[in-house]
Amino acid sequence: MSIDPTMVIVGNLTEDPELRFSPNGTAWTVFTVAHNKRRRDKAGNWVDGDPLFMRCKAWREIAENIAASLTRGSRVVVSGRLEQSHWETATGEKRSSYGLAVDDLGPSLKFATATTKKVTRTKPTTTGGGAAGDDPWTSEPVDNEPPF
Amino acid sequence: MSIDPTMVIVGNLTEDPELRFSPNGTAWTVFTVAHNKRRRDKAGNWVDGDPLFMRCKAWREIAENIAASLTRGSRVVVSGRLEQSHWETATGEKRSSYGLAVDDLGPSLKFATATTKKVTRTKPTTTGGGAAGDDPWTSEPVDNEPPF
Amino acid sequence: MSIDPTMVIVGNLTEDPELRFSPNGTAWTVFTVAHNKRRRDKAGNWVDGDPLFMRCKAWREIAENIAASLTRGSRVVVSGRLEQSHWETATGEKRSSYGLAVDDLGPSLKFATATTKKVTRTKPTTTGGGAAGDDPWTSEPVDNEPPF
Amino acid sequence: MSIDPTMVIVGNLTEDPELRFSPNGTAWTVFTVAHNKRRRDKAGNWVDGDPLFMRCKAWREIAENIAASLTRGSRVVVSGRLEQSHWETATGEKRSSYGLAVDDLGPSLKFATATTKKVTRTKPTTTGGGAAGDDPWTSEPVDNEPPF
Repeated sequence: MSIDPTMVIVGNLTEDPELRFSPNGTAWTVFTVAHNKRRRDKAGNWVDGDPLFMRCKAWREIAENIAASLTRGSRVVVSGRLEQSHWETATGEKRSSYGLAVDDLGPSLKFATATTKKVTRTKPTTTGGGAAGDDPWTSEPVDNEPPF
Repeated sequence: MSIDPTMVIVGNLTEDPELRFSPNGTAWTVFTVAHNKRRRDKAGNWVDGDPLFMRCKAWREIAENIAASLTRGSRVVVSGRLEQSHWETATGEKRSSYGLAVDDLGPSLKFATATTKKVTRTKPTTTGGGAAGDDPWTSEPVDNEPPF
Repeated sequence: MSIDPTMVIVGNLTEDPELRFSPNGTAWTVFTVAHNKRRRDKAGNWVDGDPLFMRCKAWREIAENIAASLTRGSRVVVSGRLEQSHWETATGEKRSSYGLAVDDLGPSLKFATATTKKVTRTKPTTTGGGAAGDDPWTSEPVDNEPPF
Repeated sequence: MSIDPTMVIVGNLTEDPELRFSPNGTAWTVFTVAHNKRRRDKAGNWVDGDPLFMRCKAWREIAENIAASLTRGSRVVVSGRLEQSHWETATGEKRSSYGLAVDDLGPSLKFATATTKKVTRTKPTTTGGGAAGDDPWTSEPVDNEPPF
């Protein structure tokens, strides 16, 4: 066993996160975070590098809270596990892509203040119950898009 | 050269973050994040491990926004650089401690929704100007406490 | 500015790393690391997850040392920065891929011992000189393959 | 649950790692890694920052391989989990310290080549058997020093 690859990415949402539901009723959302790289050049000035785009996926309570709180342009701090998906195009070509399975996320306080409101839901947002929360992939919705 | 040690920690504030100012007028704040470790034991149950406490320090805009937004108990996602401080006790004993120089931080959306409000400050919160923002340590306030 | 996404990945090389040279004489190598995910299921047993494959690229001295030291199957600990490349297929389709720009790397001591031998090269392995070492991308070789 | 704080540190051993055994026969070793921070100043030059020292602890096979392979000055890439220990001095003063529970480690190939040799041990290095390997802390040796 070794530690699975985890990552933190800080950046801005490229679109409004849309809340979706899997066939069994699990809430989920997927969105892209754009991280702008900056580095000092040899003259000591900060220069922009190419942005890095990371597809992020969240499930259940945090997915609902993300959809309720964030919009296009929101700056976020995301902690998650790097995942790789393998899929096939309509013409049978094999492809793979990476994405971040969100473990936790918060709107950045670098340029903004925030007011939070604790959410108490009366029942689980999935029929899978609490146990399903242990493994976010088990109730991953089936659809025709690549997972990330 | 190699990449400096960076970390992400998710946990709860153990106290209200208090805004302070260095002699040259730079805003800063220091607070502790408690991370509760959980792991699956051999029977497959989640059990609590010992909490890990991490002292975090932030400067300038983000320090002001933290003090304005967070209170004791707030759950946060913190990204930063691990730093080590060396200091001496009143009796001349050498000590060292670790702390996280906050790069970015957001209140967690795991159990809460958030409303953010962009902050536009008319002038820099430090007399050091924009350049000082490049290195948060250069205007670190001098006081009698250990840095973390 | 915020910290750029860095990662550590532990896994096995899927092929022998081949040493190549850019037009200006810079040594580089590219190889894939397969990380086998393991996690405890609800019964407390360790189960294998899907492997994660990460394309890694190294330049100059460390590229030469990798090519001289590692082979297919070698287990390694890799620290690097996540990069994203954008490219076009022969038919004009836009694609992107991720890869790790290796900052440092060592053969794992989990199941093996190692003997190291310090390498002193009499001249730089690139005509760019020492300064080029500051930024591994500046002398990135141009070739017809996607960067990762 | 949230991801526990993990870290990668690259640096040099400040001493030879010494192999020790717990009362139940588990091999372990503890050593310090010094990471030299470097950063670009406003004139674009690389300058040295304060070194960061991190106490690292390893158990079982990897502890044996570390003790057999590394010496003072060895440059290593270490991946592990940040842990915090709480202890009391002889005079009853409470203290805490941080350390890295080594998950994996390799001698750096940045300035050296390496030859590895797979180790096959005929019996486990601990009487606890394979299961003990799941949790490196359960057989942590009891001694009079602070854990890190």
